[in-house]
Amino acid sequence: MAPNVENLTAVLVKAEELRLEKRAIPEPKDDEVLLKMGCVGICGSDVHYLVHGRCATFILNAPMVIGHEGSGTVAKVGKNVKNLKPGDRVAIEPGVPCRKCEFCKTGKYNCCPNIFFCATPPDDGNLCQYYTHAADFCFKLPDNMSLEEGAMMEPLAVGVHACNQGEVKFGDNVLITGCGPIGLVSLLAAKAMGAVKVIMTDITPHRMDVALKAGADAVIDVSKGTQDEHTEKIKSILGGDLPRVTLDCTGFESSMRLAINSTRTGGVIVLVGMGSSEMKLPLADALTREVVIKGVFRYRHCYPTAIQMVASGKANVKQFITHNYTLEQTVEAFDTARTGKGNPIKVMIHCSK
Amino acid sequence: MAPNVENLTAVLVKAEELRLEKRAIPEPKDDEVLLKMGCVGICGSDVHYLVHGRCATFILNAPMVIGHEGSGTVAKVGKNVKNLKPGDRVAIEPGVPCRKCEFCKTGKYNCCPNIFFCATPPDDGNLCQYYTHAADFCFKLPDNMSLEEGAMMEPLAVGVHACNQGEVKFGDNVLITGCGPIGLVSLLAAKAMGAVKVIMTDITPHRMDVALKAGADAVIDVSKGTQDEHTEKIKSILGGDLPRVTLDCTGFESSMRLAINSTRTGGVIVLVGMGSSEMKLPLADALTREVVIKGVFRYRHCYPTAIQMVASGKANVKQFITHNYTLEQTVEAFDTARTGKGNPIKVMIHCSK
Amino acid sequence: MAPNVENLTAVLVKAEELRLEKRAIPEPKDDEVLLKMGCVGICGSDVHYLVHGRCATFILNAPMVIGHEGSGTVAKVGKNVKNLKPGDRVAIEPGVPCRKCEFCKTGKYNCCPNIFFCATPPDDGNLCQYYTHAADFCFKLPDNMSLEEGAMMEPLAVGVHACNQGEVKFGDNVLITGCGPIGLVSLLAAKAMGAVKVIMTDITPHRMDVALKAGADAVIDVSKGTQDEHTEKIKSILGGDLPRVTLDCTGFESSMRLAINSTRTGGVIVLVGMGSSEMKLPLADALTREVVIKGVFRYRHCYPTAIQMVASGKANVKQFITHNYTLEQTVEAFDTARTGKGNPIKVMIHCSK
Amino acid sequence: MAPNVENLTAVLVKAEELRLEKRAIPEPKDDEVLLKMGCVGICGSDVHYLVHGRCATFILNAPMVIGHEGSGTVAKVGKNVKNLKPGDRVAIEPGVPCRKCEFCKTGKYNCCPNIFFCATPPDDGNLCQYYTHAADFCFKLPDNMSLEEGAMMEPLAVGVHACNQGEVKFGDNVLITGCGPIGLVSLLAAKAMGAVKVIMTDITPHRMDVALKAGADAVIDVSKGTQDEHTEKIKSILGGDLPRVTLDCTGFESSMRLAINSTRTGGVIVLVGMGSSEMKLPLADALTREVVIKGVFRYRHCYPTAIQMVASGKANVKQFITHNYTLEQTVEAFDTARTGKGNPIKVMIHCSK
Repeated sequence: MAPNVENLTAVLVKAEELRLEKRAIPEPKDDEVLLKMGCVGICGSDVHYLVHGRCATFILNAPMVIGHEGSGTVAKVGKNVKNLKPGDRVAIEPGVPCRKCEFCKTGKYNCCPNIFFCATPPDDGNLCQYYTHAADFCFKLPDNMSLEEGAMMEPLAVGVHACNQGEVKFGDNVLITGCGPIGLVSLLAAKAMGAVKVIMTDITPHRMDVALKAGADAVIDVSKGTQDEHTEKIKSILGGDLPRVTLDCTGFESSMRLAINSTRTGGVIVLVGMGSSEMKLPLADALTREVVIKGVFRYRHCYPTAIQMVASGKANVKQFITHNYTLEQTVEAFDTARTGKGNPIKVMIHCSK
Repeated sequence: MAPNVENLTAVLVKAEELRLEKRAIPEPKDDEVLLKMGCVGICGSDVHYLVHGRCATFILNAPMVIGHEGSGTVAKVGKNVKNLKPGDRVAIEPGVPCRKCEFCKTGKYNCCPNIFFCATPPDDGNLCQYYTHAADFCFKLPDNMSLEEGAMMEPLAVGVHACNQGEVKFGDNVLITGCGPIGLVSLLAAKAMGAVKVIMTDITPHRMDVALKAGADAVIDVSKGTQDEHTEKIKSILGGDLPRVTLDCTGFESSMRLAINSTRTGGVIVLVGMGSSEMKLPLADALTREVVIKGVFRYRHCYPTAIQMVASGKANVKQFITHNYTLEQTVEAFDTARTGKGNPIKVMIHCSK
Repeated sequence: MAPNVENLTAVLVKAEELRLEKRAIPEPKDDEVLLKMGCVGICGSDVHYLVHGRCATFILNAPMVIGHEGSGTVAKVGKNVKNLKPGDRVAIEPGVPCRKCEFCKTGKYNCCPNIFFCATPPDDGNLCQYYTHAADFCFKLPDNMSLEEGAMMEPLAVGVHACNQGEVKFGDNVLITGCGPIGLVSLLAAKAMGAVKVIMTDITPHRMDVALKAGADAVIDVSKGTQDEHTEKIKSILGGDLPRVTLDCTGFESSMRLAINSTRTGGVIVLVGMGSSEMKLPLADALTREVVIKGVFRYRHCYPTAIQMVASGKANVKQFITHNYTLEQTVEAFDTARTGKGNPIKVMIHCSK
Repeated sequence: MAPNVENLTAVLVKAEELRLEKRAIPEPKDDEVLLKMGCVGICGSDVHYLVHGRCATFILNAPMVIGHEGSGTVAKVGKNVKNLKPGDRVAIEPGVPCRKCEFCKTGKYNCCPNIFFCATPPDDGNLCQYYTHAADFCFKLPDNMSLEEGAMMEPLAVGVHACNQGEVKFGDNVLITGCGPIGLVSLLAAKAMGAVKVIMTDITPHRMDVALKAGADAVIDVSKGTQDEHTEKIKSILGGDLPRVTLDCTGFESSMRLAINSTRTGGVIVLVGMGSSEMKLPLADALTREVVIKGVFRYRHCYPTAIQMVASGKANVKQFITHNYTLEQTVEAFDTARTGKGNPIKVMIHCSK
């Protein structure tokens, strides 16, 4: 591999300007690996940067390589790297923390204020052909997993962290609001972690069908009926009980209100999807019943678990990959993701031929 | 003690009608003790029932004995009682749960839906001369504690539970919003549990003075300045850090907003004071920083700890007893509590001469 | 059901004297149910009482009804009972705690020093035709579970508690020493709770075959080879890793030594089977690697989970019932259990025809 | 500071050969600071290396700089260092982990198999004049703390970690076996963390006197009487209760036996002092009462807490510094430490004049 070989790279120059550029192939540092990129999935946040040039408090002020749901094959290893060798196929955990702050030292590295995170401005992502990354944040895929599945480890890790925050364990009943990609991977994680019944909500028939096929025990169309009716339906599905854990994967006030109305005393509500910041909620109704409210910010320690879920056959992530494109078709791929044409769940870009 | 001795009892007949009645002295059941009541403090909820005939979702539909912050002396024990004997002075934990539901069995008895709780309709309280109670919810006072202090164990237990929910431990910095009785006992509990710095907020100079005298490291007058200024002040007092735990002892939306703005990443906000149910809050601001939001409903397992705090000299509850009345002066005592004349913190009624 | 109907009852009069007696049918108290007994499994401790007249520190000083792994059908309910009605089939949790001590109040009711426990002297068990029990310690069986399976909830509850103590969760690798009944139910519980690989040890080929059929990923015959060889084999099966959790279901010093040698840094060893009290162990080898050592005493809150495991098809307990007898054949049933003729795993007695 | 200034350094060449050498002053790397060493305390393990050339499984195969309980003043900072500046006085946490392994990422960095640790072969310690260290493992001392106290943060951190493992909190009663330096700092930590009563054991009158002066509520001379008598004495001191937490700071089998006999049901035993590996113990006696047994390996996240304990006046570590020497008197200092002449508790070496 000559250093002057081209490295086709998807660059988001600014809002509404996404283009492919040829860049140099980088050299891995001592603790890094050079990866020949395999697959990169498109996330809602990627689309958000494309359309709005920002996402939450992060603002795109300069051109940035897009993409953070990636997998690849090790092409070269830095001199200190021992956990990987050329040829290994890996899932790439896109956040590399500072390793020195209090959060890093106490194991909550996702809260590190100095974290490098692919495709969060100003950090470059990995929708390209060659990319270097900290070796210890690359997780070797077992032989029975594909690079497509490897790229799906990123969203699945969010589902795993959501369930970890909710302390989902064998025997729990779980309510998941929203049947979008994050709701769906949370469903897979909850089931793998032992949830007995998972009820999901949405307003789009197509999404609810996907949820049922993916293993949801019931779906509730919240476009119809009142909140109390929805809660009653949940109760009736659970034989008179209420879910111990609710994962809100919408970020909508209405979903959080349903969560508060429907989570059992002493349970947990986890806000996974981040929507409007300001919410008007009957908070005391949950808190006087000692329901705990938690959030999810990305994930920590979830890649090994996510990989085990897929490798052991407990989580089928392939079913969610509905559309496939080559790196050269990146603009078209993003068009599918932003318009929703053809009901995409996960749009996957293949970086190598 | 003859069975026909009168038992003067404070009965809240309906909103705005509080009167003293003579009732029969009850007989303790096998697992109960008969108590000669010592002291009973007046709580905000007692005043709320007097003024509004209701509190939160609990409604006064029939005459009810008022009072739930009580202490007394054992006069007689039921035949199964082994932990107490006549003459023992005790603090009375006012809630006696069903002991059979899932919450009772798993140790969260405060969440028991069938709990008997003094002076929560329709359950009678203990502002009277003689009262029977489950023996295992009566906690013997050590010799160095008075019956006045015994009655203070009820509010202090709320402070202990608030700190338990916040997992306050040595080295924590704590923000407490509100310098009312619950804020003040939370301050004592937080300090006893090892909080290094406790910052409190209020809008009343008198209350802030009391907080400072009781050990608060700083108070912030939130009637002046903006929320961001208050957060900056907190940060400056803590040498650039933010509190890991915030106990909201007001129940106000503005306090919860300050809590969200001021609690450090990965910390805990505990809603202790229950105010308006509906709150408009920038919830995602806290949850994306993985701040956990919890509530407090009464307390569980807190009486032994509260007693140890006072007995060991770590918590001075006596300083908060500002007004004393006899049982016969009950109406006058409630008048002081509801009007705030003379800046009462805790109004204490002495049931025995 | 006439009150004078006989109630055939298996009474252990003293060591080596087990006989059937006709007793009166008891009346349920207000919080109790009368059960027409369905099935009762024989446990190793039952056999121990029969042979030795004692078990651990519990000594048989007077005749005692034997049996504590029981299921039955509700025949009559006490006046306060609301969770059950006649005709309901239930699994019987054999320990009814005092509900008043510190352990009961904090949710660790299995540690209650005053607990009533079936067939632990001096408390009578339930190997009989009619038996009364606290209604809240009777757990309704769903329609898809049999009374035989209901009786198996007792040993399965031990496995669930063992896994709870080890905090077994999705992704864990688990070592279980011993393929006896408790090892086998621990295997089922570990798998249901998400263990990815479970390795078991034993010295009897037959038992190891049963373990493999029941889902163990590998078994190691510890009658051959050295401890270090066993550890190396475990490591090799786990691809170079060591189990995070070891459940010792033998109580033997040699098993605990293997546990110490084979549990990964930061992991947990749970002593489930209680054997010789005095053990010589290289304890510091485990503790300097911050391996935690815990014990199991019966179980708490495990019946609902155990029932869900079977009802959801995650745990097949029926496969372990190898021998069936009628109540009249009780002596023969115990003979099978104590001699091991026919390689019994679980010997089940059917109390009703 | 010229690079050729001598750097007097205490080198343990091999067992029984400790000498002072002049070495070059090192240059800090980008994330390091150069420290002008202040004080270094002598630990039992230092003496063990001097006498035996080994400690536990660590063997001295080459000359090694001794010393790991150090404090110093920042002389120079690497280019990435932001948390410190020249002139800052710091306590030095002597272990710098790899930051990349699973233990580091999950916050248990003390279990990192690749950790650098001062004066654990083959890693050099810091008993010298100039020393470089990772900046994030140097903790700034507040103005009210001396460099002597800074050096004491290392043993105090062990006490803090021991109490963390025991989850010592307000209201606990604690038994500490052994009044040596680790027992004494554990006492300080336990008291600061809210222990109400701390009972200690030893066999040396002088040490027991020190313990009482340092705040132990009672000491028991275990050179006299039986184990059951010692347990009875503990119970009597605690008004009939047993300690919830026992910290064994001796590593002796007899102490662990007393711990098992004396820790209350559901409590915790922490093995802090590592002695003979093989111990014969009635383990089941503890485990059937669900007493948890844990170990301590150094510490993690304890320096900030330890510093707060001293800065806030909750822990007086100065009282334990009984002997002071200059760096030039190192051999004499070690002689005091190893012979125990003059009843030393902590022997402190001052590296700067």
